[in-house]
Amino acid sequence: MRADADRLEFRIDSREGSARAGRLITPHGEVETPAFIPLATTAAVRGLDTDEVAALGYGMVLGNTFHLFLKPGHERIAELGGLHRFMSWDGAIVTDSGGFQIFSLAHGSVADEVKGRRGAAGSHGSILEIAEEGVRFRSYLDGVEKFMGPEESMQVQASLGSDIALAFDECTPFHADYDYTARSTERTHRWLDRCTRWHEAHGPAGQALFGIVQGGTHQDLRRSSVERVTAAAIDGISIGGTLGQDKDQMRAVLGFTVPLLPLEAPKHLLGIGEPDDLLDGIALGLDVFDCAVPTRLGRHGVALAPLPDQRFRINVKGRSLEADQDPLVAGCPCPACTRHSRAYLHYLARAGELTAVRLLTVHNLVYLERLMAGAREAIRAGRFEAYRRAGLAGAAPWAA
Amino acid sequence: MRADADRLEFRIDSREGSARAGRLITPHGEVETPAFIPLATTAAVRGLDTDEVAALGYGMVLGNTFHLFLKPGHERIAELGGLHRFMSWDGAIVTDSGGFQIFSLAHGSVADEVKGRRGAAGSHGSILEIAEEGVRFRSYLDGVEKFMGPEESMQVQASLGSDIALAFDECTPFHADYDYTARSTERTHRWLDRCTRWHEAHGPAGQALFGIVQGGTHQDLRRSSVERVTAAAIDGISIGGTLGQDKDQMRAVLGFTVPLLPLEAPKHLLGIGEPDDLLDGIALGLDVFDCAVPTRLGRHGVALAPLPDQRFRINVKGRSLEADQDPLVAGCPCPACTRHSRAYLHYLARAGELTAVRLLTVHNLVYLERLMAGAREAIRAGRFEAYRRAGLAGAAPWAA
Repeated sequence: MRADADRLEFRIDSREGSARAGRLITPHGEVETPAFIPLATTAAVRGLDTDEVAALGYGMVLGNTFHLFLKPGHERIAELGGLHRFMSWDGAIVTDSGGFQIFSLAHGSVADEVKGRRGAAGSHGSILEIAEEGVRFRSYLDGVEKFMGPEESMQVQASLGSDIALAFDECTPFHADYDYTARSTERTHRWLDRCTRWHEAHGPAGQALFGIVQGGTHQDLRRSSVERVTAAAIDGISIGGTLGQDKDQMRAVLGFTVPLLPLEAPKHLLGIGEPDDLLDGIALGLDVFDCAVPTRLGRHGVALAPLPDQRFRINVKGRSLEADQDPLVAGCPCPACTRHSRAYLHYLARAGELTAVRLLTVHNLVYLERLMAGAREAIRAGRFEAYRRAGLAGAAPWAA
Repeated sequence: MRADADRLEFRIDSREGSARAGRLITPHGEVETPAFIPLATTAAVRGLDTDEVAALGYGMVLGNTFHLFLKPGHERIAELGGLHRFMSWDGAIVTDSGGFQIFSLAHGSVADEVKGRRGAAGSHGSILEIAEEGVRFRSYLDGVEKFMGPEESMQVQASLGSDIALAFDECTPFHADYDYTARSTERTHRWLDRCTRWHEAHGPAGQALFGIVQGGTHQDLRRSSVERVTAAAIDGISIGGTLGQDKDQMRAVLGFTVPLLPLEAPKHLLGIGEPDDLLDGIALGLDVFDCAVPTRLGRHGVALAPLPDQRFRINVKGRSLEADQDPLVAGCPCPACTRHSRAYLHYLARAGELTAVRLLTVHNLVYLERLMAGAREAIRAGRFEAYRRAGLAGAAPWAA
C-alpha cells in the first residue's frame, strides 16, 4: 500500500475492540466512518436530487463505472466537467470498477441470487470473451460490442474523476468451484498490477485507488489475495466476491479475512448493507459499506425496521397494514414515519405510486444513516458493543 | 345556484375585462384564483409528498373519486379520518365525480385522444350497462362488478370529505353524434337533480357541490345545459365534456359557453392545463383548472417551457440536449433548472431514472404555479391582457 495524503487521508479517531470511528478525508470533503454509501448507479440516488442526499447526512455516494461507461459515456461526462459536476454533487464519490456488472453478464442471476445485494446489473447483455487482456461483451442497451480491461476501467474512472477508484476485478460467484476461483483471483491480481501501473502514470491528482480482495469462501485464497492486494500501490482495500451462501458463512469469511488486513487501512465491504451485517461488519473493523438495499427495498415497497425476527424489514404491501393508523416505524424521524400512517403508505405502495417509492427510499436511507451515526457515536463513547447487541436484539438506531 | 358561505365563499377582488382575481374560501384554507389544481389521483401528487405540494404554492388538489372508490375504498378512507387526514393534506380538495373515468371505460381511447388531457383512467376495465339509474362496470383492478350512479358518487365524495364535490356526469366524447350528446346531456341533468337532492339531505357540513355543464361542441346543447345547471342547488360550475378536436374549436366552445354563466359564480374548467389554454381561459373569466399535464408530462420526460412554437414544451429526451450545459429553462426557479444542466436531465430521463420524473414534475408544477401567480398579479395590476399576450408570444411567467 502507498501512503499519500494528497489522494486520501484516513484518520482513526477512536477504537473499541476492532471497531473504529474515523474520517476519510477526500478532495470532496470528510466522510465520517463507519459510513454507509448510497448507490448513485446512474449518477442519481433513485428518486432523489443530490442536495437531498446531502441533507440526509450522506457525504459519499457510489457511481457505477459500467453503466456510466455505456451511457452517457465517460468522454461525455468528462466534457461536461466530470461526474461531480455532471450530477451537481459536492461530496465524495467512489466508483465501482465495472467488474461486478460485467461479470454479472456471464455469471448471471446466480451471482445476484447468492450475494443478493450488489446492484442487479445488465442482465440483457452478454459476455463474448473473458481473456487475460480483459472482457469483450455486448451492451445491454444496444447490443454493441464493448471491451473493458484494467486500463479501460481506470481510464473511465479517471474521466469520471471519482475520489476513490476501484481496481478492475472479477467478482467470483458462489457457484464457481475452487479451481475457477483460484485462477480468477490470480487474474484479478495481475489486473490489479496493470491498474496500479496505469493509475501511477495517468491517474488524476487526488484520486485514490482501492484494491479488491477476492478469493471466494476459501481461506487460503483470501489469504493470498490479501497478501497480493496489500503489497500493491493502493490507498485502501475493498472486499469483494462471494461471501458464501448465508450470513453465517459471510461472517466466517469476513472473520478470517479482515484480521489479515493492515489495521490502519480504510476498509470497504462491497455490496453489503443490511442492518445486522453493518453492525457486525463495524465490529470486525470495516469502515465503509455500499449497498442497493435502501433504494432497492424502497422501490419494492419494503421498509427497514428494528425487527430482527423479520430480517429488519416491513413489507409495506402486506395486508396487515391495510387499516393500520400507526406510524411505519415509531420514533423514526423521516417524513414517511412522522407524517403518514402505515395504511396510507400501504395504499400508495400497492397502487405503485411513485410517492411511495420515494418515501420508502428516504425512510431506508434515514434508517441506515441513523444506524451508522449511532455506531460512530457509540464507538467514540466506548459503548459500541452494547449498541451492536441492542441493535441486533431489536433496538431502534435512535433509541440505542 | 345556492348561496351558502358555510360551504364555500368565492370573493372576486379584482377584474380586468372578463378576467378576475379572487379567493375561494374553503373549510381547508383560501385558494387564490385563478388557480391551477394539481391532480392527486391516488391520494398523492405523483412522486411528491403533500407537504412538498404545499411548499410549491398550491392550496388545492384534485382527488379521484373513481380510483379511491375502487381502492382503498371510501369506507376505509372515512374510517381513517377522511381524505385530508389519509393523505396528510391540510389544504383544500376537490373530488372529481368519477363520471369521466367510468365513461372512459366505454368511450375508451377516443375520449383520451380528443381531449388528450383529462387523466388516462382505467382502460383495462369495461362498462357493462349505462342506464338511467347509473352505470354498471367491471373494476380494472380485479374484474369485480361495481355500480355507480349519482347517489353513489355523492356518497363516496361525502365519505372522502372533499371541500368541493362534483356532480355525477357523463363526459361525452368528441366522436359522439348530436343525438347521443343531447340524450346524454339530458341524463346528466337528471343525475344532477339526484345529486343535489342527495347532497341537500346528506352532504357533509362544509362540502360544496359543483354542477357540470355538458353539451359537447353544440351551442344549443351547451346553452340548455347552462340553464339547467345554473338553476340547480349548486355552489359552483364546472365545464366538462369534449371541447372539440383542436384548440380553435375549444376556444369557440368556451367562447359561446362561459359568457352564459353567472358572473359571480366560481368556474372550473375540467382537464385543461396547457400554458396557452390557461392564459386564454383566464381571459374568458374561468377561475380554476385541473389537469394531468404537469405530472404526466414529467413522467414522460417533457418539460413546460415558454416556447409557443413547440407547444410550450421541451422533450428532455431529445438528442439535441445530449451535451447541452444550459439550464433546462433559463430563469426558472425550480431545482431542475437551478441545479442541473439539460445534458444531465436528458441522461436521467433517457435512463428512466425516477429522479428525472421527480425533477421534471416539480419543474412543471413550478412553471404552472408561476404562470398562475403572474396572472393573478397582472389582473390586480390591470395589466393581464399584456401578460397574456406576452405569455402567448413566449415570455416566461417570471419575466412577464
